[in-house]
Amino acid sequence: MAEEVKLIGLSMSMFVIRVKISLNLKGVKYENLEETFGSKSELLLKSNPIYKKVPVLIHNGKTICESMIIVQYVDDVWSDAGPSIVPSDPFDAAMARFWSYYIDDKWFPAYGEVIKGQTREAKIEAAKEAIATLQPLEEVFQQQSKGKDFFGGDTIGYLDIALGCYLGWIKAAEKLTGLEFFDKNETPLLAAWAECFYSNDAVKCAVPDVDEFVEFFH
Amino acid sequence: MAEEVKLIGLSMSMFVIRVKISLNLKGVKYENLEETFGSKSELLLKSNPIYKKVPVLIHNGKTICESMIIVQYVDDVWSDAGPSIVPSDPFDAAMARFWSYYIDDKWFPAYGEVIKGQTREAKIEAAKEAIATLQPLEEVFQQQSKGKDFFGGDTIGYLDIALGCYLGWIKAAEKLTGLEFFDKNETPLLAAWAECFYSNDAVKCAVPDVDEFVEFFH
Repeated sequence: MAEEVKLIGLSMSMFVIRVKISLNLKGVKYENLEETFGSKSELLLKSNPIYKKVPVLIHNGKTICESMIIVQYVDDVWSDAGPSIVPSDPFDAAMARFWSYYIDDKWFPAYGEVIKGQTREAKIEAAKEAIATLQPLEEVFQQQSKGKDFFGGDTIGYLDIALGCYLGWIKAAEKLTGLEFFDKNETPLLAAWAECFYSNDAVKCAVPDVDEFVEFFH
Repeated sequence: MAEEVKLIGLSMSMFVIRVKISLNLKGVKYENLEETFGSKSELLLKSNPIYKKVPVLIHNGKTICESMIIVQYVDDVWSDAGPSIVPSDPFDAAMARFWSYYIDDKWFPAYGEVIKGQTREAKIEAAKEAIATLQPLEEVFQQQSKGKDFFGGDTIGYLDIALGCYLGWIKAAEKLTGLEFFDKNETPLLAAWAECFYSNDAVKCAVPDVDEFVEFFH
């Protein structure tokens, strides 16, 4: 059976970027159904009646919602295509899930305050607090990466995607605040990771140009 | 190697109950390290420094936090012991994860308002709103259970545990408000499911007596 894969998304959404990276890693071709910012299509409302949010993956007519649930689904369905996204070791997988949860629970709202900040000073203050929520991830990287480039080891994994989807937004915030979110002295491993992640082909074609994020900020 | 499994918990916690049910389903023996309500042990603070919350599973010295992440971990580690908790089909697994997320995101806060209600009337109003959040699960049960007793089919699965952990608290709320949370007319499938789930041996020995929940309410 020919696979029919559609993604309802918004190119600027970090959560949509997660799904695109996972599909790219697996080499899955998909039709991109771009929503219009500020409105919701009939298809979106029908496909995600509970949350009415992107991303929604439609795979052979079945709809899957919530970004990290979709990432896991993509890994499960295309398990033989490309490297595994979810770590195969149960403890590593649990750690990846825990820190992914932490990122959405602690880092995301802290980062949201940077966007909301009305003045440059307010953005800088909010950015400092957001940066503080990243600190524990330096040690997590050391434990998980085992000396390799990614949280997932040699290849991009679940936690890389959970955090890395924010890199475009982070670069925009760095431009606007003059702060380094992944400081080379404070969090050298994360700083090196961010460069590695951002230059990966599966990521590059999933993330809009940084100027688009800056524009959005304004 | 002899397995060392310890669970830092509180017997009344729905999130701890999730872990106990999963361990019982897999026939895993564990040492129960009961916390004292209102204080936190040194071991808990050390084991879960980010959230400082139960449950924490300690397996051969490794700590795993967050209830549904632990449930998945238990299923992964003891994959050959007892039936699978996470559905083997990727789409069924994604659905179980989505609705489990929904339960913690929508039902749990709504139920929290029932506990917070200062008068019987306030509790009844809050209970009506909480019950409304359960309605979509009737259709989910029909899709997932495929005519069997549980969301997981013949055996208790991921979504059964995510929702079923609340049954003791629900029974207490039913006593206090006179309302039926799983109404036999409105949600007949969920009503039958609740009876099935609550009478399962793996559940019975994980859930305190309903009077203890009522006592806690007061």
